[in-house]
Amino acid sequence: MGTKGKVIKCKAAVLWKPGTPMQMEEIEVAPPKATEVRVKIVAAGICGTDIGSLDNKELAQYCPIIMGHEGTGIVESVGEGVNTVKTGDKVIILGMPQCGKCNTCLNPKNNICEEIRLSPTHLVSEGNNRITCKGKMVCQYIARGTLSEYMVIKEISVAKVDEGVPLEKACIISCGFATGFGAAINSAKVTPGSSCAVFGLGGVGLSVIIGCKAAGAARIIAVDVNKDKFKKAKELGATECINPLDYSKPIQDVLFDMMNGGVDFCFEVTGLPETVATALASCHRDHGVCVIVGAIASWVQLNISSELFFSGRTLKSSVLGGWKTKDDIPKLVSDYMAKKFNLDPLITHTLTLDKVNEAVQLMKTGQCIRCVLLP
Amino acid sequence: MGTKGKVIKCKAAVLWKPGTPMQMEEIEVAPPKATEVRVKIVAAGICGTDIGSLDNKELAQYCPIIMGHEGTGIVESVGEGVNTVKTGDKVIILGMPQCGKCNTCLNPKNNICEEIRLSPTHLVSEGNNRITCKGKMVCQYIARGTLSEYMVIKEISVAKVDEGVPLEKACIISCGFATGFGAAINSAKVTPGSSCAVFGLGGVGLSVIIGCKAAGAARIIAVDVNKDKFKKAKELGATECINPLDYSKPIQDVLFDMMNGGVDFCFEVTGLPETVATALASCHRDHGVCVIVGAIASWVQLNISSELFFSGRTLKSSVLGGWKTKDDIPKLVSDYMAKKFNLDPLITHTLTLDKVNEAVQLMKTGQCIRCVLLP
Ligand SMILES: NC(=O)c1ccc[n+]([C@@H]2O[C@H](COP(=O)([O-])OP(=O)(O)OC[C@H]3O[C@@H](n4cnc5c(N)ncnc54)[C@H](O)[C@@H]3O)[C@@H](O)[C@H]2O)c1
Ligand SMILES: NC(=O)c1ccc[n+]([C@@H]2O[C@H](COP(=O)([O-])OP(=O)(O)OC[C@H]3O[C@@H](n4cnc5c(N)ncnc54)[C@H](O)[C@@H]3O)[C@@H](O)[C@H]2O)c1
Ligand SMILES: [Zn+2]
Ligand SMILES: [Zn+2]
Ligand SMILES: [Zn+2]
Ligand SMILES: [Zn+2]
Repeated sequence: MGTKGKVIKCKAAVLWKPGTPMQMEEIEVAPPKATEVRVKIVAAGICGTDIGSLDNKELAQYCPIIMGHEGTGIVESVGEGVNTVKTGDKVIILGMPQCGKCNTCLNPKNNICEEIRLSPTHLVSEGNNRITCKGKMVCQYIARGTLSEYMVIKEISVAKVDEGVPLEKACIISCGFATGFGAAINSAKVTPGSSCAVFGLGGVGLSVIIGCKAAGAARIIAVDVNKDKFKKAKELGATECINPLDYSKPIQDVLFDMMNGGVDFCFEVTGLPETVATALASCHRDHGVCVIVGAIASWVQLNISSELFFSGRTLKSSVLGGWKTKDDIPKLVSDYMAKKFNLDPLITHTLTLDKVNEAVQLMKTGQCIRCVLLP
Repeated sequence: MGTKGKVIKCKAAVLWKPGTPMQMEEIEVAPPKATEVRVKIVAAGICGTDIGSLDNKELAQYCPIIMGHEGTGIVESVGEGVNTVKTGDKVIILGMPQCGKCNTCLNPKNNICEEIRLSPTHLVSEGNNRITCKGKMVCQYIARGTLSEYMVIKEISVAKVDEGVPLEKACIISCGFATGFGAAINSAKVTPGSSCAVFGLGGVGLSVIIGCKAAGAARIIAVDVNKDKFKKAKELGATECINPLDYSKPIQDVLFDMMNGGVDFCFEVTGLPETVATALASCHRDHGVCVIVGAIASWVQLNISSELFFSGRTLKSSVLGGWKTKDDIPKLVSDYMAKKFNLDPLITHTLTLDKVNEAVQLMKTGQCIRCVLLP
């Protein structure tokens, strides 16, 4: 027998300080404790949320930290009481846990499992993690940390997928694809024949477009300040592409006129607080639904003109696409295998894990949609 | 024949300057032109919206003006092309028009007829009104102005009611009752067994309570800073009453704890911008729906913590209860006659029109719910 019950020495990309490049380091990954699973990562994605956090000074208190929350892998060993996955299973890391027991998990209307509100954000279990580097405890971003060869994660944050799944593709279903696709399908409940506008055409925004198309939207307007994103948006289903920088008037006025009162469903997927009001204003005055998908820091105040609510507009948000992750994400993986949608075009780059800082630059400069990293 | 085709001299309460008392004046009411109706007012209500406007300096440009938009009366004569009402019909003034032809009227999802966005707020028709006083043109508040013996109003803003209707009660269905009741029934779609919280227990907020009860809500929490409102709230269906001033912690925290994660449906009915965020925060984290009913000036920016949207909460508003006014308000009047609900307790005072400033004081000091004025 190999590694079971032993500390595994391996490589990971470690962030020592926000705003600095990650460093490839040797780390020690302890065996999983009860309710935990140790996973050999096969592929990891980088999501806009990682990029936003990398330079965030607030993260300093959790450094050193391993970033990344999209990923797929193979179960190396499991802790006591784990029974939904076993050694050798192919698994997907869930962008959010589903404990199945909390009030939210028992409530069919939402998916933000209380586990992520109760437990310290970057720790796998009460008080600590299973990873060390140079004698220091290493945090795992959102209790995940997929930019590593091995990780320990709670059973409620991982799900078995079919044997035949190409893990180096499916890894972006963990968060980015599931988030965008579900925002359209579950949160907005886009209707056939409707119009949609998507603000921000990263991996998440483009997945919203895939969802709008799957839901039968007649018009899908892709909005980005980076026109290089438009080709892919059209390929995935956008019927038209708009760059706010090409207009002298505010983009909400452009859309209002173009769509005779506004767009049926609008999605804010840039992560900028200002774009929330823009997306809401772009919604159809009588019945428009605006869904906030972009992650905005919890301390930010949204400023929204009360005038926008002298209307039939609705404002809501979508977290991880509204999916009950442990139940639904493996089904999304099966749907991908059954070719119900194609997410391959979202993966524009594949690099080895030691090139992780290059991948970050590709994201920051808008040159890539998703870069998959292979340890 | 009497007055048809002639100018009618009569009395009205005229506001010459915001912030000053209204004055009883003799006015001249011209005959209705095409698409217009001249109505002898039988009873008028005063709504929180009137009260908010009375002291608003912005109103100065429309003075002299006749306030009031709740009312019932009898058709004195009709202009050319009017065919939904005729001389002698009992009618109710609609708090909002329904032209039946604009995009919004043709859209089953909303009720904010474009007529009120297109036409200057306080004029009945293009460029002028039908009323003069001391040689000056008099504006009619929201193109209504029920604090008068006679008024001219567009056909799309008035609807016939049954012969047997007690006009001096039904007048508050025009706006206040329809708004509150519909906010619960149409906009929030309150579900049987659910919990509701109503912030602000004026005529509109209490009508929300009547609506929540009719929809089968199990718990209806009435919230007001004026505890004198609690008796009536209980009488109408509130299961508990809360005064934010009785707590050291914010009222949203009180409700969050009390309701294990928040209230299913929350209604902001005070008209204060701050209460929007409070009501939203009081909504259940997983699925709460917050409906803005209170009228907030269009230039006010709502400040809402983005954290409130890391959740399944929904924020929307409700204008005139979501009713298609000309179609639906006469049905509400019939439902009242059929005793499907009882709004009589909302009418706490009845005064003659010349006591209008007394009625305003009763509203401002929180001593009355609705005061009906009889010309
Ligand atoms: N709600 C969730 O559960 C969830 C999950 C994953 C990601 N997110 C968030 O979703 C957002 C998008 O993630 P991503 O991975 O696609 O990121 P990304 O950085 O790849 O994409 C963002 C896109 O927005 C564009 N953009 C920037 N400013 C803009 C503007 N003013 N108008 C229009 N477009 C503009 C950029 O050019 C870029 O194409 C991020 O904020 C991320 O944190 C949320
Ligand atoms: N959306 C619409 O179509 C529509 C229609 C009619 C009225 N309105 C608006 O609805 C609101 C209520 O109208 P009304 O006629 O019932 O007015 P009202 O003045 O009779 O009632 C307002 C109530 O709010 C209470 N209040 C004040 N501050 C409070 C606080 N911080 N917390 C809790 N309660 C507080 C007051 O004590 C009072 O009881 C007004 O803003 C009015 O303009 C909107
Ligand atoms: Zn849970
Ligand atoms: Zn993500
Ligand atoms: Zn209309
Ligand atoms: Zn009113």
